[in-house]
Amino acid sequence: MVAGIIGATGYAGAELARLLSAHPKVDKLALSSVSFEGEQIQDIYPNFIGRIEYPLLKAEDVIASSDVVFAALPHAVGEPFAAACIERRIHYIDFSADFRFDDDEAAYNAWYGKSFQFPELHKKSIYGLPELNRRRMKDLALKEPVIIGNPGCYPTGASLGIFPALVKGLTGRVFNPYRKHTDRCGPVIIDAASGTSGGGREPSRSFHYSECADSIAPYKVASHRHSPEISRNLDVMAKEGNVPPPLVIFTPHLVPMNRGILSTIYIPLSEKWRVTDDYPDTVRLPSKEIEAKTDEIRGLYTAFYKDESFIRVLPKGITASTNRVRQSNYCDISVHVDINGSTLIVITAIDNMVKGAAGQAVQNMNILFGFDETEGLNAIPMLF
Amino acid sequence: MVAGIIGATGYAGAELARLLSAHPKVDKLALSSVSFEGEQIQDIYPNFIGRIEYPLLKAEDVIASSDVVFAALPHAVGEPFAAACIERRIHYIDFSADFRFDDDEAAYNAWYGKSFQFPELHKKSIYGLPELNRRRMKDLALKEPVIIGNPGCYPTGASLGIFPALVKGLTGRVFNPYRKHTDRCGPVIIDAASGTSGGGREPSRSFHYSECADSIAPYKVASHRHSPEISRNLDVMAKEGNVPPPLVIFTPHLVPMNRGILSTIYIPLSEKWRVTDDYPDTVRLPSKEIEAKTDEIRGLYTAFYKDESFIRVLPKGITASTNRVRQSNYCDISVHVDINGSTLIVITAIDNMVKGAAGQAVQNMNILFGFDETEGLNAIPMLF
Amino acid sequence: MVAGIIGATGYAGAELARLLSAHPKVDKLALSSVSFEGEQIQDIYPNFIGRIEYPLLKAEDVIASSDVVFAALPHAVGEPFAAACIERRIHYIDFSADFRFDDDEAAYNAWYGKSFQFPELHKKSIYGLPELNRRRMKDLALKEPVIIGNPGCYPTGASLGIFPALVKGLTGRVFNPYRKHTDRCGPVIIDAASGTSGGGREPSRSFHYSECADSIAPYKVASHRHSPEISRNLDVMAKEGNVPPPLVIFTPHLVPMNRGILSTIYIPLSEKWRVTDDYPDTVRLPSKEIEAKTDEIRGLYTAFYKDESFIRVLPKGITASTNRVRQSNYCDISVHVDINGSTLIVITAIDNMVKGAAGQAVQNMNILFGFDETEGLNAIPMLF
Amino acid sequence: MVAGIIGATGYAGAELARLLSAHPKVDKLALSSVSFEGEQIQDIYPNFIGRIEYPLLKAEDVIASSDVVFAALPHAVGEPFAAACIERRIHYIDFSADFRFDDDEAAYNAWYGKSFQFPELHKKSIYGLPELNRRRMKDLALKEPVIIGNPGCYPTGASLGIFPALVKGLTGRVFNPYRKHTDRCGPVIIDAASGTSGGGREPSRSFHYSECADSIAPYKVASHRHSPEISRNLDVMAKEGNVPPPLVIFTPHLVPMNRGILSTIYIPLSEKWRVTDDYPDTVRLPSKEIEAKTDEIRGLYTAFYKDESFIRVLPKGITASTNRVRQSNYCDISVHVDINGSTLIVITAIDNMVKGAAGQAVQNMNILFGFDETEGLNAIPMLF
Repeated sequence: MVAGIIGATGYAGAELARLLSAHPKVDKLALSSVSFEGEQIQDIYPNFIGRIEYPLLKAEDVIASSDVVFAALPHAVGEPFAAACIERRIHYIDFSADFRFDDDEAAYNAWYGKSFQFPELHKKSIYGLPELNRRRMKDLALKEPVIIGNPGCYPTGASLGIFPALVKGLTGRVFNPYRKHTDRCGPVIIDAASGTSGGGREPSRSFHYSECADSIAPYKVASHRHSPEISRNLDVMAKEGNVPPPLVIFTPHLVPMNRGILSTIYIPLSEKWRVTDDYPDTVRLPSKEIEAKTDEIRGLYTAFYKDESFIRVLPKGITASTNRVRQSNYCDISVHVDINGSTLIVITAIDNMVKGAAGQAVQNMNILFGFDETEGLNAIPMLF
Repeated sequence: MVAGIIGATGYAGAELARLLSAHPKVDKLALSSVSFEGEQIQDIYPNFIGRIEYPLLKAEDVIASSDVVFAALPHAVGEPFAAACIERRIHYIDFSADFRFDDDEAAYNAWYGKSFQFPELHKKSIYGLPELNRRRMKDLALKEPVIIGNPGCYPTGASLGIFPALVKGLTGRVFNPYRKHTDRCGPVIIDAASGTSGGGREPSRSFHYSECADSIAPYKVASHRHSPEISRNLDVMAKEGNVPPPLVIFTPHLVPMNRGILSTIYIPLSEKWRVTDDYPDTVRLPSKEIEAKTDEIRGLYTAFYKDESFIRVLPKGITASTNRVRQSNYCDISVHVDINGSTLIVITAIDNMVKGAAGQAVQNMNILFGFDETEGLNAIPMLF
Repeated sequence: MVAGIIGATGYAGAELARLLSAHPKVDKLALSSVSFEGEQIQDIYPNFIGRIEYPLLKAEDVIASSDVVFAALPHAVGEPFAAACIERRIHYIDFSADFRFDDDEAAYNAWYGKSFQFPELHKKSIYGLPELNRRRMKDLALKEPVIIGNPGCYPTGASLGIFPALVKGLTGRVFNPYRKHTDRCGPVIIDAASGTSGGGREPSRSFHYSECADSIAPYKVASHRHSPEISRNLDVMAKEGNVPPPLVIFTPHLVPMNRGILSTIYIPLSEKWRVTDDYPDTVRLPSKEIEAKTDEIRGLYTAFYKDESFIRVLPKGITASTNRVRQSNYCDISVHVDINGSTLIVITAIDNMVKGAAGQAVQNMNILFGFDETEGLNAIPMLF
Repeated sequence: MVAGIIGATGYAGAELARLLSAHPKVDKLALSSVSFEGEQIQDIYPNFIGRIEYPLLKAEDVIASSDVVFAALPHAVGEPFAAACIERRIHYIDFSADFRFDDDEAAYNAWYGKSFQFPELHKKSIYGLPELNRRRMKDLALKEPVIIGNPGCYPTGASLGIFPALVKGLTGRVFNPYRKHTDRCGPVIIDAASGTSGGGREPSRSFHYSECADSIAPYKVASHRHSPEISRNLDVMAKEGNVPPPLVIFTPHLVPMNRGILSTIYIPLSEKWRVTDDYPDTVRLPSKEIEAKTDEIRGLYTAFYKDESFIRVLPKGITASTNRVRQSNYCDISVHVDINGSTLIVITAIDNMVKGAAGQAVQNMNILFGFDETEGLNAIPMLF
């Protein structure tokens, strides 16, 4: 089959081209680029020479010649392409935020400053986190062409680390601690760090080598647009699990590495899961009791994800880090309980370009087409 | 005067040699090294050629010929040198954890697995965080030779970011949320990232280039030995401010950069400081009210540190990052309030080798000798 | 079939395990490790969890159960394993220098300080650079089990860049310029830079993050053991082409990157290929004549390698760099003529762990077994 | 005194501000910026907060209020400022290429595509490499205001490594080997690598983190504009030494590091200095004879630079690398003789922002004003 990529010359689009070129079910690509229309993809990415050699077409021509279309575009430009795909009766997988908020136009508008152009498209579009919405995707795809809002990179790593603790009732409900919303548990704090490829291909000061090398910098503290996406994911999952949704606090950092997102997540444990005792903090060491509780929680996480191909709950003694998932579609998860017994610390690692973008999109394509979910996503992580 | 360094060939010792060589009050260094005794420091550090050229002596010879002694040694070996210095009536500044717990041998023993060899030395030793103990250091130095326990790198960055919020009553008291200790506020969560020089000069797998480059890795999650040191600092400050001490949760990460520690600190705001409203999280954006509260807190931090030479509370719009303090003795602090109004996010950045080790030791020397506190510590941060 | 790896826990061995695990003709691996015997490979390399999970056996057991054996061992320990493989009538591919010098024991002894233990094995062993010895490998493998000396990383990148210029007569013969050996052309200067993975998994000062990050350092200047291997390759190729062999000068550098070797090669052009004129150097700019000569030479290189699957002679305007071959088995080559018309500058880039080690070994296995040479080596280079 | 910097917000200008702020003879800075006129320098470089706080003025105002003016501007815009300074009778030190070619307008025009606007200014301007032109600078400054063309970064590292070999007759004269210019010795090959700060502050694809991290890339092969500058320097020095000037071949590479230039320089030895014998290359090892010759040459280099404050000819066994000169004004030099005895390999390391730009400019200022040459340039290199 022919897979089309609109916006193939950005980093996410090019990574997708690399993955799809090795996908056993994909025979050919159709690529477009506004910036480089008429050129060849391998002139823009000489690493593709001899392997991925296609002309860069107009978006319309990509849609017309493809059996599935991916759009790796800036926010707020892809809706017409989605409409065209639906009209052509083919699936459409969108990398931007445009279809990540279902029909919650208010949220989209608040954070991205745009209105929906084709509101009806959002009624049936599905947020493409397989671990949350696989069933819906499968079912709808049996009936009609589907629009997928491919998740943001941070929300993927964060949500996957919190889901089990949330629906299994580990997340503490702090009674009216912080605000009027007495119905929320938490707060769940996500302290995350991303590699530079998340910033895309366009040069800018923040991603200029001399400015970001050999340093770590938080950015958009308390104001990043992935906050509401994470919140929404947890709300959905909480509803499914019939548990209160959590407050979310999210801080992203830029780290001098090419790929990867690490999320260190702090979840206050509910009364039942908390480990309590009377040692003063300055003497307390990790206790047997905490170790046992950690093992129990690890078992719970493992069970929760037992049917997932791309989630690895790491064994005792191994902590998630980004170099263990490099270039793969895995989300690694390690679980820890804080020394004072109050808080679950979950660490997740993904490759932001794969599970955080292009790989997840391929996974979604596999689901929509009924392929084995791991088709084309078999890369074994490279340590370096 | 002659400044002695015992353990001059480790990274912290060598950095100290570099700083002291440029110190206007220091005429000469006396250096020792167990590993390289008899060699010259510039053979071990060829970057010193022509500038810092001294033989590496025995520790005893350093003590005998110095007017002040620094020890940059592993834990649990420096006490005899401290005793010798006190006997010689000279100040002794220790980089290890040996003198960081005052006379709390239980805490030291729990975390470092050792007993005090000279318990009486710990009765008068002072934890050398100038912003906490300057007055005590000055006073005692007027009377007798002083033993300083130079702070750990993480505890320096963490404590300085929390002190104002703690003593000014911003830190929320979460009633009995987590454990029996109903008297503690918090928890205060410190998510920190360090450069590789913190791991010292001795090669090991964790700091092998191919293992740590291009990746971020948490380590010693919920079990790092700097946790009790941070807790103790906050307990001391809380007592001074007559406020409840906080629970502390601390997670360190290794980042591929040579120098620097960034601490992203989450402090639950007390009722008085909390910003509350009714917007659902997925729509909420940073509000005017939150901005105003942030300005107020920034002003409070600025006032708190107004007499400190090495603390820079950053103006609105600038977020702390490690490349802004590189090679300097500064601790940069930026303050933020989370979008949901519940939590203060404080970010601090230090150079782990300077304010986190050698620079702070020089600052302590300046205090003990009554020099201007900035003598020898005037380096302007290098962006790269 | 079962592929055995002796020394599977070093970087080259682990990379080989990664490649072979995805090889369509390999059903199973048998792995050994002296250091970690009895453990599982995924405990040493958690990135392999769920994908490459094997116990670490004794070398003898690997040999006994495999259809082909690779040895990724230090120098001077593999000969007995080679002997055992030949006795078991299976091919043996050695990553060390032991079988890189054919039967030239004097050269091996001079540079590696060891004698041959099984001299007769070296009479038939083949240096496994496919572009040089493919025919010999194929032919011998039809008759009997073969011992392959898998090439060094630097010699691979250097030799492939020089071969065409050498046999096509581009390399100038500088009459008696430098020494008594009036029969040599050149000198050919190879200025090369390697990523850190070339230093292996064992921690050492040179590869300690703080010592090698953010810096470039030449090492073993005028004394690296890959010099004689490069010289020998060129001598063999010169003999085949009936041209004089060149003098070789080789300088390696360590660069802060995980993977890759870049070789910048300076080849004095022979009279026929030289571009001459009368402009003073300070005014001269790249001329049309030089551009034309460069195109001609590029054509010649392209033709020379036209049947090679893994060599990409880059088109005009694109210069080889290591990020364009990352994780692939490619050797990229770009050709340039110096502004003064005297010297050909050839730049080659390989991934030191793939074409420079494990990938080339798989390529050799493919040749020995008559598989398509690209089997299991289809990875498309990752830009980052 | 007041030091003015026109173009203070580029990397070189900001580094100069950092150095001059710590210069004991400089009381105050006057800074200008076209891009940020009206703002404060510490808003652009928050690392300067509390230390370097000046408004960004117009260039004219800087000239009017300064006792010496530095211009860190793009090429071809600074001449009017030079003219204005001369009129005001103050020294002018230019970082661009505008005054690096003396009155050789043809060379400047060929490489930079511009004509001189004020040709008469170039008649007396001096190329500011102190090791070449110190005397001329001193003498002229006694009489009148001087225009200094501050050297390029690559030409500094390259020239300093070649000068002694050239004037002491070590450089071989290869008779008519390459071209009609039978009067030139060499070729001298300079294979150099630069950190990213050399590319300046303006974001671009080449210096975008994801494009240049974890990789090494040659650029402007056989066409870099520093080639003619190097050639010119060597021609001048050859003339002084009454030896033939060399042909120069220069290839720059971009390496993922913030600062530093390493030059690996290949100089064919003249008959007298060559070491010859009859060992075949594949057996030959570094010989006693070569070692002795290397010692002799090292001695010669040491003697040549014995009065220079910023040149360190490294002792036997130590090879120059960029992390040994970091942030300092040093040029480190190590000398080696190739294993085949034909070629001298000289390696030089500088910090491209200091000796390669701002530090050298301060050194020139010190010379012009008769200050001690090391004033304000006492930074001890940081290993990391």
